[in-house]
Amino acid sequence: MYTINPDLQQERDGATFNPYELTIWWDGGTEKHEKRKALEKLFLEDSELKDDLPLSYMSHKQIYENSVRKAVLIAKKLRDLHDVGELSVDTYTALLGGTLGCALLKEGNPLSVHFVMFVPTILGQGTMEQQITWLSKAWELNIIGTYAQTELGHGTFLRGLETRADYDEKTQEFVLNSPTLTAYKWWPGGLGNTANYAVVVAQLLAPFIVQIRDEETHMPVPGVDIGEIGPKLGMKSGNNGYLGFKNVRVPLNHMLMKNQQVLFDGTYIPPKNSALTYGTMMFVRVVLIRDASLALAKASTIAVRYSAVRRQSPIDPNKPEPQIMDHITQQLKLFPQVAKAIVFKANGDIIYDMYAHVSQEIEKGALERLPEMHALSCCLKAVCSADAASGVEVCRLACGGHGYMDCSNFPTLYGMSTAVCTYEGENTVMLLQTARYLVKAYGQAALNPQVQLVPTVAYIKKIIEEPEFVGFDGSSEAIVEAFEYVAANKIRIAYERVEQQRRKGAVPEVATNRCGIEMVQAAELHGRAFLAHTALTEIQALSQKVSPALGEIFQLLLELYLVDACLHGIGDFLRFIKLTQQDVNGLELHFQECLKRLRPNVVALVDGFDLHDRILDSALGAYDGNVYEKIFDAAKKSPLNKEAVNASFQKYLKPLMKSNL
Amino acid sequence: MYTINPDLQQERDGATFNPYELTIWWDGGTEKHEKRKALEKLFLEDSELKDDLPLSYMSHKQIYENSVRKAVLIAKKLRDLHDVGELSVDTYTALLGGTLGCALLKEGNPLSVHFVMFVPTILGQGTMEQQITWLSKAWELNIIGTYAQTELGHGTFLRGLETRADYDEKTQEFVLNSPTLTAYKWWPGGLGNTANYAVVVAQLLAPFIVQIRDEETHMPVPGVDIGEIGPKLGMKSGNNGYLGFKNVRVPLNHMLMKNQQVLFDGTYIPPKNSALTYGTMMFVRVVLIRDASLALAKASTIAVRYSAVRRQSPIDPNKPEPQIMDHITQQLKLFPQVAKAIVFKANGDIIYDMYAHVSQEIEKGALERLPEMHALSCCLKAVCSADAASGVEVCRLACGGHGYMDCSNFPTLYGMSTAVCTYEGENTVMLLQTARYLVKAYGQAALNPQVQLVPTVAYIKKIIEEPEFVGFDGSSEAIVEAFEYVAANKIRIAYERVEQQRRKGAVPEVATNRCGIEMVQAAELHGRAFLAHTALTEIQALSQKVSPALGEIFQLLLELYLVDACLHGIGDFLRFIKLTQQDVNGLELHFQECLKRLRPNVVALVDGFDLHDRILDSALGAYDGNVYEKIFDAAKKSPLNKEAVNASFQKYLKPLMKSNL
Repeated sequence: MYTINPDLQQERDGATFNPYELTIWWDGGTEKHEKRKALEKLFLEDSELKDDLPLSYMSHKQIYENSVRKAVLIAKKLRDLHDVGELSVDTYTALLGGTLGCALLKEGNPLSVHFVMFVPTILGQGTMEQQITWLSKAWELNIIGTYAQTELGHGTFLRGLETRADYDEKTQEFVLNSPTLTAYKWWPGGLGNTANYAVVVAQLLAPFIVQIRDEETHMPVPGVDIGEIGPKLGMKSGNNGYLGFKNVRVPLNHMLMKNQQVLFDGTYIPPKNSALTYGTMMFVRVVLIRDASLALAKASTIAVRYSAVRRQSPIDPNKPEPQIMDHITQQLKLFPQVAKAIVFKANGDIIYDMYAHVSQEIEKGALERLPEMHALSCCLKAVCSADAASGVEVCRLACGGHGYMDCSNFPTLYGMSTAVCTYEGENTVMLLQTARYLVKAYGQAALNPQVQLVPTVAYIKKIIEEPEFVGFDGSSEAIVEAFEYVAANKIRIAYERVEQQRRKGAVPEVATNRCGIEMVQAAELHGRAFLAHTALTEIQALSQKVSPALGEIFQLLLELYLVDACLHGIGDFLRFIKLTQQDVNGLELHFQECLKRLRPNVVALVDGFDLHDRILDSALGAYDGNVYEKIFDAAKKSPLNKEAVNASFQKYLKPLMKSNL
Repeated sequence: MYTINPDLQQERDGATFNPYELTIWWDGGTEKHEKRKALEKLFLEDSELKDDLPLSYMSHKQIYENSVRKAVLIAKKLRDLHDVGELSVDTYTALLGGTLGCALLKEGNPLSVHFVMFVPTILGQGTMEQQITWLSKAWELNIIGTYAQTELGHGTFLRGLETRADYDEKTQEFVLNSPTLTAYKWWPGGLGNTANYAVVVAQLLAPFIVQIRDEETHMPVPGVDIGEIGPKLGMKSGNNGYLGFKNVRVPLNHMLMKNQQVLFDGTYIPPKNSALTYGTMMFVRVVLIRDASLALAKASTIAVRYSAVRRQSPIDPNKPEPQIMDHITQQLKLFPQVAKAIVFKANGDIIYDMYAHVSQEIEKGALERLPEMHALSCCLKAVCSADAASGVEVCRLACGGHGYMDCSNFPTLYGMSTAVCTYEGENTVMLLQTARYLVKAYGQAALNPQVQLVPTVAYIKKIIEEPEFVGFDGSSEAIVEAFEYVAANKIRIAYERVEQQRRKGAVPEVATNRCGIEMVQAAELHGRAFLAHTALTEIQALSQKVSPALGEIFQLLLELYLVDACLHGIGDFLRFIKLTQQDVNGLELHFQECLKRLRPNVVALVDGFDLHDRILDSALGAYDGNVYEKIFDAAKKSPLNKEAVNASFQKYLKPLMKSNL
């Protein structure tokens, strides 16, 4: 449609490595790469799945109706793929949560929860008989389900759920009730107007399959009060809903009984091992950790390309206005986000592998590494989601006024990425969970230096064995080791202050709450130390495996990531490690040197993320760089620009302007 | 409608001071307070100015049409007030940009720019004759104007504007042209579909009054290409527009000629003093600095009230779930925002007074303090707007999922407050402007210790006279002095690195760009040091003037603000000031002590901001604290909840569900 913007072309011509090589790594190999491309072609070139009118011009109701239309098309395509044996887990992931899914339904798919929660819950918690009853119906979309757990009054603290399921022995039914307003289920995706079944979690955390709408008329069934919760910062087409019960009866065999049972006489047999429910939550967090890199990749692609095209404010008064990327303050904002995208990607892969390994052990009944994995996934979920969301905002703000427009796609990107800080375990709660684990581990090591700590917290012992860190030389290795010293010291302080509180007579939980600030700081640093460590080992190993040209880039990104992380936390470093003025100056100059070295390759780097224009969905970030034309095209789509004079002129403005002539 | 939530009532009953006393200070005295209340009554109780359907359910076009309807009602009411002599500048400010204006048109008023830019520009830059011609028409709203300066390709760098106004001596007209797409005017509020006149700034920065739409038909006049720019993160009803010219002819006397002239023969007479245009920009920034406290007051009111009502996650396992405000990590998030709201308010008043004083001097021809005032207003605009926007997000995230819903009003609050980081001088550009001033001042002092520096930068000399800071004792006074030491050192480093670059042969501008990171850091610290200093002097003085009960609260907020600011920048403090482990531990414990002491009064404090429920517009933050009922009420308004079954069921879902039965 347009030719490539010459500034962008020049950046590409000047790159020292081949972005395609990066893409192949990013996609996990040539085979996966080609599958992704084929899938994107299949879905993105389907004209029925394009929106002629961008969502942000539509009303809330239009957005919903449009999303159902598209979700049904996607579901049919999925069924077709399944019928010809072409459906893999990767395809599901891509279409329901991944970059492709976001391109098709950028504000969420009202059928997602059916596939990612309703079906898996039946699989994971239903008996064989229950699976036979429900799975094929669900799989074939003869019914549409959702997963209703969170209530208006309780999210994080599951034991506080108020929805009641009382067993009536006479009829062998459960009677569901929402005794208060706060007991209403709140948030489930697709619940509002779409689903006709739900897995409902009631007190004692038992899950029930409950019909909520008639299969023929879609009317709510008697006793069920149902609706959607209204608009939100993001996820605008997720059709999140609410659900209240008044004496709704559910047969005994609608309770999912694989892990826990209620017998005919009402006897409750609790699950043998609650750690297994643990596992599912962990999986979701692992996926979120992995996805943090995607948000950063999208945002930095848009901002980097825009910054190569946009020219403003002379640097040298004798020269024309430069690309804004040549302003050091712009590099300061953007380049660390690119580095983070790469490091988070490598980290996400590691965590995913680690999880797969621990899962296999769990299957075999070996639960030893479960608490460690849980602790690690909690704090990384918090750190990575927070960094991704704030990175998106840094990129948006770096694009000035144009980044503020919906056509940049930044508003949606932010709305979607900041949501991750809250859902699937609110970040502060996540950090506190990790911190309790860390403080306990520190306590063990402090009391008995011989104790063996599990691998990811073993570094804590360093400060017990060697309280002083010496020989900081600013190298990547030194920064990683320093991170571990700092984290260990933060954990030590949390431990000491909790102990202090306990000596003052506080029960453990109160002591922990009083030290909440120290606790979250310790857990955050633990996550950052882990990220620094995996960055060093993974990216370094990686840079040996690829071409020298790309290897050099990886090394540079590693340096940039580590120095930036260190400078961001410099207060902690100065506090616990004897750094001199020269050390800090050296880090600052090293950071600036990294920016300078990355400058010629940064456009090629984001090209290497290989994000389809439909996925970026941004006038500022398209591959061809025709920023201004695309901004203008986006504005032209406004219904307000389809008529020369809006009706409000005759109705309101003209009477005002003429009223006193 | 509802009774007061008992938890909230208990908080109010337990307060040690009278919030009304705080309100009177906040409003600037009893008289202003009563005027504000009367104005709120007049506008907020007008049922025509209420939205039955919240904006977020509407389409982009509906939002616009609704905003015109309301803007016209407001304008008529303003005219009525004027006719009975009741119209003051305060009224204008309140209705077009202040809290009241936001309550009436929360996403912006398409007539705002007419009042705050179009009319003042004619006043400030028109000759007496031009004022006579245009002002009464504009004042009476017989014409509606906007102010068109920013272009698609240029915002910050005004000299880069491309719109041409070529003088045609034969006809004594200017010929306006947009030679490129990037020359299109972009962003002016009300330009899209509302205004029929515009002040247009063309090359050489001359302003012209240009008719853009026909007064009878509202059709764009020949040669004018006009439309609206589409949806944005916020300001959704501002009707921001674009504007292109093709040989549009404007009479010579439509150029505003008070400060600069073009004679009949085309001779251009430039303005005698460009500093005067300077003054207008400065005024706007001063207002933005003052308004930063409002965003924080709104956000913290919502989050604090919600946190007093919401109960979740036991602390002590033997007690019921506590108010979430009793979790220390919640206090960590919210209380510093309350303190910032107060400090920013006091600071805003000071800056406003300082500006008024400097303006008076300028009127008398004394321009000495103009550069100082400019430098100060630039960095404070950047620091305060950034802190306000991030404070709003902290409050939103602290409200978990409920903060993510539009009915919390946080999404709009954030969209509006983050915009301030970009408009009226992008924050990084602002910091660089301040930094250039600071580096110059440091250079003067370094070269000549006898030089007199102006008051707001005089502290720089401290580190030249006494390079070592000794005797840090953690007191407020010590923190303020330490802030100045740190800022001065940051300025010194920027200066030294710029000089280094110049010795390497870089021209000044290039040297400055290379040191952009050091420059922005220096300017930010300068702003923070100023804030700390005014906090100390103003809040301390204030606490002597009020009742002992309120005085104690002010003192506590001052401590909290300073210790929090210090801990946030602890890296810089540790770098430039010899702090021991004990010092840092002491600051941390002092911070926690402040949280604990503030806890019993924090609800009363936000009550003292006295923000009307319509202004907060939040289900989470209403005075009565009936959070869950109000969330539910908001959801009930959804058009999707007005019908039991949405049309998409028959159209899309049912065919899908039945297709393979």
